[in-house]
Amino acid sequence: MVLGKRVPRVDGLEKVTGQSQYADDIVLPNMLRGQVLRSPHPHARILKIDTSRAENLPGVLAVASARDLPLVRYGSSIQDETAFAVDRVRYVGEAVAAVAALDLDTAKEALRLIQVEYEGLPEVFDAREALKPGSPLVHEAVHTYKHLPGFTPVEGTNICYHYKLRRGDLEAGFAESDLVLEDTYHVPMAHHGYIEPQTSVCWFDQQGRATVWSSSAKPYGLRKDLAAVFQLPMSKVRVMTCRVGGSFGGKNDARLEHLGLALARKAGRPVKLSMTRAESFTSATVRHPATIRIKTGVKLDGTLHAREMEITWNTGAYCAAGGSLCKNSGHAAPGPYQIPHVKVDSLLVYTNNPVAGGMRGFGSPQLSWAVESQMDEIAERLGIDPVDLRLKNAVEEGSLSYDGQVLHSVGLQETIREVAAQTEGRRGRLAPGSGTGFACSHKSVLSGTSSAAFVKINEDGTCVVMSSTVEVGQGSDTVKAQIAAEELGLRVEDIVVVAPDTDITPYDFGTVASRGTFHMGNAVRLAAADARQKLFLLAADRLEANAADLEAVGGMVRVKGSPDRGLSIPVLAAESVRRLGPILGQASYIHSLEVLDPETGKPVEASSFYIYGAQAAEVRVDVETGGIKVNRVVASYDVGRVINPATCEGQVEGQVIMGLGATLYEELLLDGGRVLNPSFKDYKMPTMPDTPEIRSVLVEEPHVEGPFGAKGVGEAVTVTTPATIANAVYQATGVRMKSLPITPEKLFWAMKENDRSG
Amino acid sequence: MVLGKRVPRVDGLEKVTGQSQYADDIVLPNMLRGQVLRSPHPHARILKIDTSRAENLPGVLAVASARDLPLVRYGSSIQDETAFAVDRVRYVGEAVAAVAALDLDTAKEALRLIQVEYEGLPEVFDAREALKPGSPLVHEAVHTYKHLPGFTPVEGTNICYHYKLRRGDLEAGFAESDLVLEDTYHVPMAHHGYIEPQTSVCWFDQQGRATVWSSSAKPYGLRKDLAAVFQLPMSKVRVMTCRVGGSFGGKNDARLEHLGLALARKAGRPVKLSMTRAESFTSATVRHPATIRIKTGVKLDGTLHAREMEITWNTGAYCAAGGSLCKNSGHAAPGPYQIPHVKVDSLLVYTNNPVAGGMRGFGSPQLSWAVESQMDEIAERLGIDPVDLRLKNAVEEGSLSYDGQVLHSVGLQETIREVAAQTEGRRGRLAPGSGTGFACSHKSVLSGTSSAAFVKINEDGTCVVMSSTVEVGQGSDTVKAQIAAEELGLRVEDIVVVAPDTDITPYDFGTVASRGTFHMGNAVRLAAADARQKLFLLAADRLEANAADLEAVGGMVRVKGSPDRGLSIPVLAAESVRRLGPILGQASYIHSLEVLDPETGKPVEASSFYIYGAQAAEVRVDVETGGIKVNRVVASYDVGRVINPATCEGQVEGQVIMGLGATLYEELLLDGGRVLNPSFKDYKMPTMPDTPEIRSVLVEEPHVEGPFGAKGVGEAVTVTTPATIANAVYQATGVRMKSLPITPEKLFWAMKENDRSG
Repeated sequence: MVLGKRVPRVDGLEKVTGQSQYADDIVLPNMLRGQVLRSPHPHARILKIDTSRAENLPGVLAVASARDLPLVRYGSSIQDETAFAVDRVRYVGEAVAAVAALDLDTAKEALRLIQVEYEGLPEVFDAREALKPGSPLVHEAVHTYKHLPGFTPVEGTNICYHYKLRRGDLEAGFAESDLVLEDTYHVPMAHHGYIEPQTSVCWFDQQGRATVWSSSAKPYGLRKDLAAVFQLPMSKVRVMTCRVGGSFGGKNDARLEHLGLALARKAGRPVKLSMTRAESFTSATVRHPATIRIKTGVKLDGTLHAREMEITWNTGAYCAAGGSLCKNSGHAAPGPYQIPHVKVDSLLVYTNNPVAGGMRGFGSPQLSWAVESQMDEIAERLGIDPVDLRLKNAVEEGSLSYDGQVLHSVGLQETIREVAAQTEGRRGRLAPGSGTGFACSHKSVLSGTSSAAFVKINEDGTCVVMSSTVEVGQGSDTVKAQIAAEELGLRVEDIVVVAPDTDITPYDFGTVASRGTFHMGNAVRLAAADARQKLFLLAADRLEANAADLEAVGGMVRVKGSPDRGLSIPVLAAESVRRLGPILGQASYIHSLEVLDPETGKPVEASSFYIYGAQAAEVRVDVETGGIKVNRVVASYDVGRVINPATCEGQVEGQVIMGLGATLYEELLLDGGRVLNPSFKDYKMPTMPDTPEIRSVLVEEPHVEGPFGAKGVGEAVTVTTPATIANAVYQATGVRMKSLPITPEKLFWAMKENDRSG
Repeated sequence: MVLGKRVPRVDGLEKVTGQSQYADDIVLPNMLRGQVLRSPHPHARILKIDTSRAENLPGVLAVASARDLPLVRYGSSIQDETAFAVDRVRYVGEAVAAVAALDLDTAKEALRLIQVEYEGLPEVFDAREALKPGSPLVHEAVHTYKHLPGFTPVEGTNICYHYKLRRGDLEAGFAESDLVLEDTYHVPMAHHGYIEPQTSVCWFDQQGRATVWSSSAKPYGLRKDLAAVFQLPMSKVRVMTCRVGGSFGGKNDARLEHLGLALARKAGRPVKLSMTRAESFTSATVRHPATIRIKTGVKLDGTLHAREMEITWNTGAYCAAGGSLCKNSGHAAPGPYQIPHVKVDSLLVYTNNPVAGGMRGFGSPQLSWAVESQMDEIAERLGIDPVDLRLKNAVEEGSLSYDGQVLHSVGLQETIREVAAQTEGRRGRLAPGSGTGFACSHKSVLSGTSSAAFVKINEDGTCVVMSSTVEVGQGSDTVKAQIAAEELGLRVEDIVVVAPDTDITPYDFGTVASRGTFHMGNAVRLAAADARQKLFLLAADRLEANAADLEAVGGMVRVKGSPDRGLSIPVLAAESVRRLGPILGQASYIHSLEVLDPETGKPVEASSFYIYGAQAAEVRVDVETGGIKVNRVVASYDVGRVINPATCEGQVEGQVIMGLGATLYEELLLDGGRVLNPSFKDYKMPTMPDTPEIRSVLVEEPHVEGPFGAKGVGEAVTVTTPATIANAVYQATGVRMKSLPITPEKLFWAMKENDRSG
């Protein structure tokens, strides 16, 4: 029984001893080093690229640009992007050309020798500006781009995608409300701040087969994009992931490997291509800046009655993950409440900013910050305890989601009560300058994505699990090992988890969207059960029992209720090799919810599950400086079932700290589309001195389809933190901040303003 | 339909362009180079090993010897061998110690600084001598060695194993015969002569996990031995094979990797350890020298009536594969004939020679040479055409093997007739000094060994096959790709075949015993069928057809008989990922024959199948010098079903040349246990000028359980060649040679002697 145990991480020792292999540790014979020439302009026509001087530099083996690739646009929902800029650049940092040379210095020198002639084009950076008629168009030919059904860009505008959610009768809802509040919140551009910048080693062999070692968190997605760009069948593209030094959604997109492969093919040698730290800020992906107008109608007793949201996402120069972010966060936008009348309009807008992509929470942190800040205002205005207001409106088992999905595994109210209990007597204003804030939230998860796994029993009964979830630091290898061990009655140390390799480990949609434990966990569990069934059939014969009466526990297959009637798994495994053949297991898992709108009968968005949770934060504000110290955070989340308390708590703590950074510190500053602070020196992230005491309370409300009931907790916590802290700041200062981050300077002036007006 | 097609080798382009990765191409960061100190004595006690001076040499990171490992003996049938010599050495070339250093020169220098004190022990080299009472004992404690059931060494002797076959009443059989002939044949020690010497890169990581890149042809066997020696569970040992530059049975045993891992563990760094060419001759394995006494009783009409064989195999210092060689060749020893009275005694004998192991044919070439030479004599003595003599006695469908197995898929008579037809009018003495010889033979194959495979369908319908058959040059990757393509209705270029890796590719007994196409072919076929069934289920739904009525052809799944009702596999594969989950297939295959002796009721040896064939060779002898030129060889073999004519013919041609080398040139010369010619300069192998015209005629007698009826043809041909050529030499000269190789010198003197006596 290893389920729910605090099993040490299977990748722990290798990581703390520095032996983990990251993509940058890969060294191949004759490997070249690559560098990318990136656009200095936010919007410009490329008149000419002259690479001749670079090509003639001794030590340069290849210079690649758009002319070396067929004109293929790729993208997950809208195919609007090319590997290298074609004819025009749309953001500062876009790849224009790349060089492969014997060493990095030569490659850098060669970049300087590439001459590009640009002709400036009108620029637009603010999403609201970009929506105005007459704004410069970032993409003039959006109507020619291929896209997934429904993701239709609006021709002649910068609207990349418009998501709509409608429920009830909004106008009537507001009319029936006793109190209507309307606010606008703003979230800036931010960055994931993973430790390891994007890295790849790319290689085209003599048989025309592309092999890539990558820091990707979505190897199958990367293979698909590379196959498209190089017009190869998938069998000719191999993507291997190494250990990954953090992703948080920042390593889901192919933003480097095309360039590396283009160089490798041209040079006929392997090429290592890594982003610098600055490139990871400007040319990987950033978090979507958002402006959220939220209008809520509420009854005097606190019953939420109507909510309208108008969200503007700035996706930058390309759509990337923006389409699904806009949609997936949109259908859960109004928060984890039962609200009869709802209207959401979520607009994804092209600008000449760096490309925005997925980042932990996938839009929900931005939305939840607006929703939960306003919830706090509503509580204040109605004189209702913020906890009670949320409990009154919270969804529960059997509630309908906004899009008509019957909700299951809903532990929200329990998490709210847990947090309330943990802050009993500490809420509200504790002392002058101190305050406790409160918030809750939900996070939806993609439905209809699949995962698969192979399980192989060795001849001595130990076991190998093959799957394509990437261990990005979240602890997935440990969880997979625990699930397989539990199912097979083995110890975690009997299980080997193989690193993702698209040639070998079966398909997985990607290590995204908090889906790993639920989706891959199920695939691994089912594959292990498939193997176990073969052990049972062999044992049933030997034990003269029915296979259905057997169990696998403690390294034995035994008759349930007769612990002395058993056979050891090592013995059975060896015997199977001799008598029946080696024991293999496999499983594919997909969780497709076909939810129909009860009124229209049309399929609507659905979430495989929702993760619910609540947080409270205690802050102390230095009223002289505006400085904020978060002293304590209580975070309670409904994870379905805890596979490993230590990894769950690690997720909770990491997310609270990440959320704290987003709330108080983090903002990518831009000037004319140029990132001004692309370094950890200038982009301030929280470090240990900023870290509060964090108390995690895990609530288990098993999901009927989760592996052993588990859901997942990779993103939900960081969704709640900004409003929690902002609400605490309000409690401490009486100041309602509506723009993140809440820097001392902003808070100081807001307090001044408040004093003046108050 | 790719079955039976001359599909180009899937590994062809990478090999001819030099891009294949062999174990020696592996370079790891911080990798050390190893060297092995080997015994200069054939039999000696080790009094003392002083490694201190070597350890103190700058650049030396580790010196390892027996004291660094637990006392574990390993071996496939008898566990008599240790990684490093313990207390005594038993052959010249046995590993005594090993060094890992920053570079090869330092490692070599360090070897010279290791001081070993030996005390000589009595030696024995000849197997006949070793059988005599009072002979020095190579292993005094054989009775303490663990062994597989039945493989019991005889205490107090050098008899490692004694195999017995009994059928009928031998004495009565001889008494009833009209003619009884008795001869003794001798086969010398020889070597496989693979191009790539054994190489390994060994690494112990911080988590105590051993990883080995190896030139092994039996990765799972190697993992088992390494796990035993290092007392690790199999999950802690990973063996990866690279491309292998020929094995021929010479890369089945673990003879290098233990040493490399011992060094890697001690140094805490990866170690590359390769055999020199000389080491591959002295310290890998050699072909068993054998002496075969054969006595045959025959009726005047040519009916074989009784045959007695007494075989002495010189296994050298350790058993290695000798036990199974002795047994598996033994039960087929009297040849592919119906003989009522048979007695075989096959003795495996320890000496102080280098260790003998498996080599292509696994004992059968030695035995067949004796049997088929004597068959020629019988024909001559009775005045019967050698072809007719063989046809008269040849086994056929339904015949019993010597051990009572009912034979199936017996194309022997057809192969004999094919060869006869191809040499019509050319047999017998063609001209003075010319002759055509004839022989036929069979080759048994292990029964009861298992293989397994995974098949993974990519999202675009291309496919990956994972299995652990090693591509040693035989073409297995191509055959596996063809089998999977055939089963799935895909093209060979749609299939990727993954290299063996014990973490990933499922169990296989090993790339030995001509078992690959039959055993792994079945596993791959079944795994592909498992995946195909999932395509069918999905397609059946869409096509409104019964899955049983579907077929996969030309990249489509379609309704049999209605070629227009179909769906493309790429479309189905993509749809499955979205709707049902990715498509995976798996299969384990074992072919266990439980054959009972009809008289005793006891289980007897069985062969999964027999491969049958016949050869004719035309030679011209220079009577002045004894020089022999083989001009033409016709070889016809019953392969069950031809998967790929080109790879089958490649096998036939390669084996004829290898057999030609064994017949005319190859012999490892020893003096006091020391190999005198451990180099390709002194060990003469045939090259292109020696190569005759070779005509292959493939006969198809489908095996009911073979994949599409296929059996295999990896060894059977080289079994027949020596007697074929020797019989041709007899036809050309009237001289019957009884000792291989038939060198000009030996033939010259034999002709002189013949002239004198004739």
